[in-house]
Amino acid sequence: MRVLGVDPGLTRCGVGVVEGMPGRQCTLVAYYVVYTDPADDLPIRLLHLDRSLTDLVAEHRPESVAVERVFSQHNVRTVMGTAQASGIAVLAGARAGLPVQTYTPSEVKAAVTGSGQADKAQITAMVTRLLRLPEPPRPADAADALALAICHIWRGGTRSKLAAAADRARRGGVR
Amino acid sequence: MRVLGVDPGLTRCGVGVVEGMPGRQCTLVAYYVVYTDPADDLPIRLLHLDRSLTDLVAEHRPESVAVERVFSQHNVRTVMGTAQASGIAVLAGARAGLPVQTYTPSEVKAAVTGSGQADKAQITAMVTRLLRLPEPPRPADAADALALAICHIWRGGTRSKLAAAADRARRGGVR
Repeated sequence: MRVLGVDPGLTRCGVGVVEGMPGRQCTLVAYYVVYTDPADDLPIRLLHLDRSLTDLVAEHRPESVAVERVFSQHNVRTVMGTAQASGIAVLAGARAGLPVQTYTPSEVKAAVTGSGQADKAQITAMVTRLLRLPEPPRPADAADALALAICHIWRGGTRSKLAAAADRARRGGVR
Repeated sequence: MRVLGVDPGLTRCGVGVVEGMPGRQCTLVAYYVVYTDPADDLPIRLLHLDRSLTDLVAEHRPESVAVERVFSQHNVRTVMGTAQASGIAVLAGARAGLPVQTYTPSEVKAAVTGSGQADKAQITAMVTRLLRLPEPPRPADAADALALAICHIWRGGTRSKLAAAADRARRGGVR
């Protein structure tokens, strides 16, 4: 199972591609950070992000895309740009016909470190260890994107079964 | 000058197409509300919104797109969806190669009613009058989108000159 994880951001957007199976060792395929210039107009920045993510999806042909869910409690100054970037990321996966799943930061932290309160350094350390990398991925946005992909692979099976059950229940019952 | 205005929303997204010139009478071309089902998954909703907006841009061939700017002070429960929808709207215009301009709600209100504090009823009344419509556009999301298009037409000239001056200053000076 190959997963493309996205840690959305308008100035720096982390992308990580990982291969693996639930409960098995994961393997790094590639990681990137897509940068857009804060001095540029919003349409130019969103267009660059869209093209970059669309190209990376086409290049790596993942079976699914995992995107970090954005909350409005985050930094108010940057949260709107982050939300817009996350919309572009979800859309890039959906336009390619891929299933897209979002995860909260706590879900990702718990999946790779065992604690929903883990800090950035812990995430980076665990991603480095889990993927057996010779050195930590830099910058941290890339490590977060890789953690998202690992989280999705490890939770993938369970999540899919739960989602399928929910769909069956919804189709059969009251909405 | 033909402008497509977008009042972004994930559940209801208003779209209004207007023709006119700064300081002249504006004419209605069409208006729409794109609906997405809150019971559907986010990727499906963003994909539907993207396709609908892309289709409307292709159908009406506007010279520019105007999108309402979203603020994080808005309703916290819906602001993330609204921000994602606004990102999709800006992207739809940019992907078509069109200039995209964002306006704050106050700028739009001031442009069509003379007051930045105008309420929804006032906006709807003025849009109905300015476009000489036989009855008010319904729902209100459509009226807001039409107001955005009118605002952009009326401010278009000034805004472009200011933007051009700013660009010249930026290119020539310190960043």
